[in-house]
Amino acid sequence: MVGELASGVLKGDHRSLAKAISIIEGGGPDRRRLIQEIYPRTGKAFTIGITGPTGTGKSTLVDKTIEEYRKRGRRVGVLAIDPSSPFTGGALLGDRLRMMDHSLEREVYIRSMASRGDVGGLARAARNTIRVLDAAGMDVVIVETVGAGQTEVQVATAVDATVVVLMPQLGDEVQAFKAGFNEIGDIFVVNKADIVNPAKTMFNIASGVQEKKGWRPPVLKTVALKGTGVPAFVDTLEKFEKFLDEHGLREERMRQRLEAELVEAAFSDFYSETINRLKGEKSWRQLLGQVSRKELDPETAAGKLVKIIAGLDAGPNA
Amino acid sequence: MVGELASGVLKGDHRSLAKAISIIEGGGPDRRRLIQEIYPRTGKAFTIGITGPTGTGKSTLVDKTIEEYRKRGRRVGVLAIDPSSPFTGGALLGDRLRMMDHSLEREVYIRSMASRGDVGGLARAARNTIRVLDAAGMDVVIVETVGAGQTEVQVATAVDATVVVLMPQLGDEVQAFKAGFNEIGDIFVVNKADIVNPAKTMFNIASGVQEKKGWRPPVLKTVALKGTGVPAFVDTLEKFEKFLDEHGLREERMRQRLEAELVEAAFSDFYSETINRLKGEKSWRQLLGQVSRKELDPETAAGKLVKIIAGLDAGPNA
Repeated sequence: MVGELASGVLKGDHRSLAKAISIIEGGGPDRRRLIQEIYPRTGKAFTIGITGPTGTGKSTLVDKTIEEYRKRGRRVGVLAIDPSSPFTGGALLGDRLRMMDHSLEREVYIRSMASRGDVGGLARAARNTIRVLDAAGMDVVIVETVGAGQTEVQVATAVDATVVVLMPQLGDEVQAFKAGFNEIGDIFVVNKADIVNPAKTMFNIASGVQEKKGWRPPVLKTVALKGTGVPAFVDTLEKFEKFLDEHGLREERMRQRLEAELVEAAFSDFYSETINRLKGEKSWRQLLGQVSRKELDPETAAGKLVKIIAGLDAGPNA
Repeated sequence: MVGELASGVLKGDHRSLAKAISIIEGGGPDRRRLIQEIYPRTGKAFTIGITGPTGTGKSTLVDKTIEEYRKRGRRVGVLAIDPSSPFTGGALLGDRLRMMDHSLEREVYIRSMASRGDVGGLARAARNTIRVLDAAGMDVVIVETVGAGQTEVQVATAVDATVVVLMPQLGDEVQAFKAGFNEIGDIFVVNKADIVNPAKTMFNIASGVQEKKGWRPPVLKTVALKGTGVPAFVDTLEKFEKFLDEHGLREERMRQRLEAELVEAAFSDFYSETINRLKGEKSWRQLLGQVSRKELDPETAAGKLVKIIAGLDAGPNA
């Protein structure tokens, strides 16, 4: 059944895509078999992460970017990450519905994914979803985050190109926002450039960016709602794609991401397999009792627990 | 030297406190010895986490809460967690300086801690800092978060009482904020209650909260800037403290937190110790090569890596 599903994915069939991504989100054993099937057919799509504070118009920019890529004959897959913060849940629904216009087209596939739950689990599901979209023949895969929390930034930087979307400086806060951005962005976009003159914000961003291996992150302005600046934005994305390829950086970045991914996934699986066995360990129960009674401090106990963990067999599923 | 420092902490000496918390933040080997020394003297302080979206006036509320507790003759320690998001860095400085007024008093100690870096590391440092303040004889330890990101919420819920600070509903966003809040708050405060009539917001919150083991989280209103409602807020905190003690819930919660803390700390230490040994492992390098060349998929490789990890010795420091 997974084999059938995989061939549906490779043909770019939307129903198979939906099913495959649900399997990946579910995290069950079929996930592994699905990835086994499709992985050899991945690596062609150019992956873009679009992040930045809420309210800067990222979704609208993504919409217009899809349209522009479509005009250029490129197939686009989009993965929208729902906020992980308990304080912004549910805000994406409107966006999702709005984006359905694109979903009707055969050459565009849009999917959203909730980021509640553990950070590692989401990052892993997002990476595998990108693989599915890649294997399905999408030329471009966009990962859009709703907010800019830690989880979301993590996902939006595990791609070929990270785009940071800001808006003209309306207060002191934007100044503060800038601080961490200059490290993660390959391209900066000042959207909603018609609200206030964006020149000062653009200058501030430009003076903060750092050249990385010969690429100086450009700062663009757009009014996504009207489509202004979007063709130039896509030009820049294509220029960056070419730059990465010409300098062998796409390969290099991919290998680095892969290494980090494998380590993360393996330690996460090790944890899941070990934690259950730990519950049955008498030595661990005794340790906890000693700390509760203040006979042992938590730091020393953690050291002892490391030894217990290292001594446990990782189990038959490892 | 650590022994001397520990006795300074136990006497409540501010200079020793500052030094001890720096050692804890640094994460070096002295940290373990320090915790060993002070742990038997902990467990008396009532710990409070104050969280909620940015801009709701949490810092001002904390300031006034300190004053109120001081009037009641209780010693107060405050740990302010800087934002973890790269987009809000540095915002706390103003607050920090403002709070120095209190720091001059002998019976109040305020410290801030940056939440950049890994989530686990911060949570651990925060817990140990609470222990230091507790051992120093603080009756109340307040953990204040600047924002409400995942990390910050995690820290603000690892306490005896979690307070969620909101403000009167100014837009749709507050509605969305509510969703995750009802699960974490023991007490809700609608601050800035003089901007807009807070009745609707208070009603909305109250209808969303859930009774937990006989405690129905109350919804209070304050105008922290003027001190309005702060005595009633502290009354409620004291009432909750009494409630927890009378029902044995403080003990129970503490044991649950301890169990989670030990597991987290041990796996984190196991990771740190194993990752370095992994780098030298030939089998891991070979595995990575196979995945890069697409001879093996990442999910299968992660499974194989789990076995390599489980087979590694945890090292002499474990």
